[in-house]
Amino acid sequence: MGQYLPPLRDTQFVLHELLDAEQTFRQLPPYADLDRQSIDQVIEAAGKFSSDVLFPLNLVGDREGCTLHEDGAVSTPSGFKEAYAQYVDAGWPALSCDPNYGGQGLPLSVYFAEKEMQCAANQAWAGYVGLSHGAYECLHASASAEIKAAYLPKLASGEWTGTMCLTEPHCGTDLGLLRTKAEPQADGSYAVTGTKIFISGGEHDMTDNIVHLVLARIAGAPPGVKGISLFVVPKFLPDANGESGERNGVRCGSIEHKMGIHGNSTCVMNFDDAKGWLVGEPGKGLAAMFVMMNASRILIGVQCIGLTDIAYQNAALYAKDRLQSRALTGPAAPDKPADPIIVHPDVRRMLLTQKAYAEGGRALAYWLALHLDQEQTHPDAAVRAQSGEMVALMTPVLKAFMSDNALEATNHGMMVLGGHGYIHEWGMEQFARDARISSIYEGTNTIQALDLLNRKVLSDGGGKLRRFCQLATAFVEEQRRVPEMQEFITPLMVALDKVLTFTDEIAARAQQDAAEIGAASTHYLRVVGHFVFAYFWARMARVALDKADTGDRFYEAKLATARFYFAKLLPELDYHLAAARAGAAPLMELDEALF
Amino acid sequence: MGQYLPPLRDTQFVLHELLDAEQTFRQLPPYADLDRQSIDQVIEAAGKFSSDVLFPLNLVGDREGCTLHEDGAVSTPSGFKEAYAQYVDAGWPALSCDPNYGGQGLPLSVYFAEKEMQCAANQAWAGYVGLSHGAYECLHASASAEIKAAYLPKLASGEWTGTMCLTEPHCGTDLGLLRTKAEPQADGSYAVTGTKIFISGGEHDMTDNIVHLVLARIAGAPPGVKGISLFVVPKFLPDANGESGERNGVRCGSIEHKMGIHGNSTCVMNFDDAKGWLVGEPGKGLAAMFVMMNASRILIGVQCIGLTDIAYQNAALYAKDRLQSRALTGPAAPDKPADPIIVHPDVRRMLLTQKAYAEGGRALAYWLALHLDQEQTHPDAAVRAQSGEMVALMTPVLKAFMSDNALEATNHGMMVLGGHGYIHEWGMEQFARDARISSIYEGTNTIQALDLLNRKVLSDGGGKLRRFCQLATAFVEEQRRVPEMQEFITPLMVALDKVLTFTDEIAARAQQDAAEIGAASTHYLRVVGHFVFAYFWARMARVALDKADTGDRFYEAKLATARFYFAKLLPELDYHLAAARAGAAPLMELDEALF
Repeated sequence: MGQYLPPLRDTQFVLHELLDAEQTFRQLPPYADLDRQSIDQVIEAAGKFSSDVLFPLNLVGDREGCTLHEDGAVSTPSGFKEAYAQYVDAGWPALSCDPNYGGQGLPLSVYFAEKEMQCAANQAWAGYVGLSHGAYECLHASASAEIKAAYLPKLASGEWTGTMCLTEPHCGTDLGLLRTKAEPQADGSYAVTGTKIFISGGEHDMTDNIVHLVLARIAGAPPGVKGISLFVVPKFLPDANGESGERNGVRCGSIEHKMGIHGNSTCVMNFDDAKGWLVGEPGKGLAAMFVMMNASRILIGVQCIGLTDIAYQNAALYAKDRLQSRALTGPAAPDKPADPIIVHPDVRRMLLTQKAYAEGGRALAYWLALHLDQEQTHPDAAVRAQSGEMVALMTPVLKAFMSDNALEATNHGMMVLGGHGYIHEWGMEQFARDARISSIYEGTNTIQALDLLNRKVLSDGGGKLRRFCQLATAFVEEQRRVPEMQEFITPLMVALDKVLTFTDEIAARAQQDAAEIGAASTHYLRVVGHFVFAYFWARMARVALDKADTGDRFYEAKLATARFYFAKLLPELDYHLAAARAGAAPLMELDEALF
Repeated sequence: MGQYLPPLRDTQFVLHELLDAEQTFRQLPPYADLDRQSIDQVIEAAGKFSSDVLFPLNLVGDREGCTLHEDGAVSTPSGFKEAYAQYVDAGWPALSCDPNYGGQGLPLSVYFAEKEMQCAANQAWAGYVGLSHGAYECLHASASAEIKAAYLPKLASGEWTGTMCLTEPHCGTDLGLLRTKAEPQADGSYAVTGTKIFISGGEHDMTDNIVHLVLARIAGAPPGVKGISLFVVPKFLPDANGESGERNGVRCGSIEHKMGIHGNSTCVMNFDDAKGWLVGEPGKGLAAMFVMMNASRILIGVQCIGLTDIAYQNAALYAKDRLQSRALTGPAAPDKPADPIIVHPDVRRMLLTQKAYAEGGRALAYWLALHLDQEQTHPDAAVRAQSGEMVALMTPVLKAFMSDNALEATNHGMMVLGGHGYIHEWGMEQFARDARISSIYEGTNTIQALDLLNRKVLSDGGGKLRRFCQLATAFVEEQRRVPEMQEFITPLMVALDKVLTFTDEIAARAQQDAAEIGAASTHYLRVVGHFVFAYFWARMARVALDKADTGDRFYEAKLATARFYFAKLLPELDYHLAAARAGAAPLMELDEALF
């Protein structure tokens, strides 16, 4: 059933040695006193909870799944409820919440580090608390003071959990089509009626109340996205004391049988004149929900880092232990009946791919998370705006690039284990099944790619992209004459140039034919993803070189992984450039009837 | 739950229009009278069985899985047994078997077409009969007349099924380590004792006997592969009438819980002084088993074509039906609330990838199968040898390239369906889980890649590869001045040149350092796979162009798919060239302790 070792050393490397988080926090009033030691202590404790409490429940959660009872109640797998109680008792739900509502007020960058480890250890379990925090963020950003007072303390304490209710049977990507209705009531509330599907954590047995954030159309609202409003619809209406009171008209109709994340309930939720309250302004529901959606997309990227890491850890463990055949270069362990399979170059290729993706992803994710902290709390509006741009630009990259990478990495894990990789008890196939959802939910990767190319790059004439590229250019300028950095700087410069040229090309093509955007987008995202990884891997190599003579072999591994990334993974960029440059015609030629 | 339409038109295109199978058969005495009409009738009937009988059992087989009872018996899912009875009643098991043993004597190329459709419709069910035929082939090639007489008619009729028992808990790839023992008995039989794992169809309830082909070591045999012999060990010993008699000492100890192919029992088999008989010569067991293994590898390639095809069919169906958002170029179906998602270039990219891989795979597979028929039955020894070379060279390519492609294609299927792709009832996630085993079993793709590069290419100085390349060269020479073929011939020439140059490069590097072989092998296999696909797609484009004015839109689709393949998929070849050229150093640098 394997192991999970929280990646404390690498997380510290990224937060402190690569990104100097302490320095960033010093500029941010709410976090100005946060020192490295405190951060590390929190992350260490979070790691311990993940490996000691959550990881042992991962296989059992997959095997048992969730159970829907006749009365619409849903049981989570054995141990999930108890683990949740421990989580609440330790105060974890409040980690990054606002102290005004009972939160501990830690930055999101620390929150995401906590989440990475939870998702690695038990993605199904982590799904309940991740979404719940998303609901907290959404209400915190958009709800009235009254709603905040009623719900935020309960979400921050973990007494209640939250959901996001967007998808309906006939619409997921295109929410403009949604039909759930909200009828205004005399008391200022709304009666919400409709059916939502794919609602993660829509029903469960871990808390005594569940707070649904529901997109619906107020009677008489215009069609399309402009007619969509957001409502808070609790399972139990808060009573006079703010506790769970009367049962509301929302029930779980069924739960889905999914490829993975079996321990996370995925519900069809039926709203039948359920009492709800408007969050934010009428017609602005989608924008309000997108606060939650954007945070969820970053969370998915972080989750994929976790799954990539745990797949790596267990594949490496197996590859060092499993004796099978001899190295092509001659016996490496002549005293044993065969060599450990880690001697084989192709096994190393798979392991290093996992390692390079996990660690590259970690650098991008925590860099992004620090920008999110700056966007939310920096005293200077210009800095907030700049950080917001970086967050907007890199969110789809982190989500889609890392979810594709996690799918590849978990599949490599299975391959390293051979037949054992395909068997439940070894755990590896579960990582692959669990990882598979990440490229689908919260906007498929096709949508992420369009978001990146169309909304984030082309819509501002490539402005945000160029501002990110300036970071790379500055680093290149600084390092280009340093001999030991040549092996990283040269390909980084080439990648940078390709991204800029390619962006201009697509912009020009798109003016002729909008189909060119959709034809290029998925390839474009992978091109940008590799460029961004090349930038962070070059920076990590710089740090590792600086510390090469400390005797800490961590830096030796970092440097070797950087070399592997540039040699073996970065070249994929050119494939995607070539495929994108082939344009829209080969995609659009075939008549729909001939498919 | 989707659909399965047997790909009769495309199979006919490949067998008759592309490969002129009738012409090949005319040279082969056992098949000289086989005409196109007869072939098509058999394939059509096989397709009907797959779509009408097997496909409706696919989801239920996945949901129910197999059940191990206390007495060691295994039940297959509802309907599997009855479908098997129908299969036997219709005489399908005998299709390509030797008429001397009750077979119908049809060529393997027709057998593989039958299998493609079975695997598409229900891979778990097809696994029972596929392996059984492998056992038949193995005994037919290596067993004594007495053993053949006892077992072949029972396998050909389908009254009994067969298994292959190779893997043990501590060895899979490296069979030289195996420990199962065979003690010679006074009556000429052997007492076989040991534990075998991952035995597909090792126990089930569909027949009254199961014939195990078991690799074991005769007492006193040398260590390593030279000490391995092959034994036939039936579950029930044949009695005086040749029927199932006394129970033998082989029992199922447990069944595995797997990612997919739940309906196929994967058993731990315990042999405890089980009575067995030697097949072929002592110490030649591995060679004898490889007759079965090679056929299985081709079968896996064919199976992956089937899964790619069914994933394509259902994704295309969904994409034409699902209304969501508008085309970037403006509404395509303005009378509907949204456009069908097939208007989106990225959705088309995924569908065309599936289509190009399925149809390209079909061309390679049936070309290979016809060479297998020639290898086995051509009157001219030189032709048999040449065909044998093509089979040897292309078997790992078909197995590994198509299993990687099937994994990608089934995952694209999930992505096209969005959230519905992750849900059991839609069937798409099952295709992805079922497909996942193909890159692992019967030799992982890492092993296939080493087999191709090391054993099939480098070991004869690239001779077999050059002989395949001559086919491409001849086609290029014939077509290079034809204007409408330029778009296919030019990139095919480039790919051909790259393959030859790259092969020489690796051969040179390998002489310096054997690790270079393992570092390049997986990339090498994909380079060769794409070159081979480019060759077949160019040939298919030629046929389609020849028939462009028939008015049959099948050729229009074929031509558009060829263009897509060259524009969007073939460029992946260059990524693998670049990654392979980066050599072994980036893989071998990191100390094992630092993983």
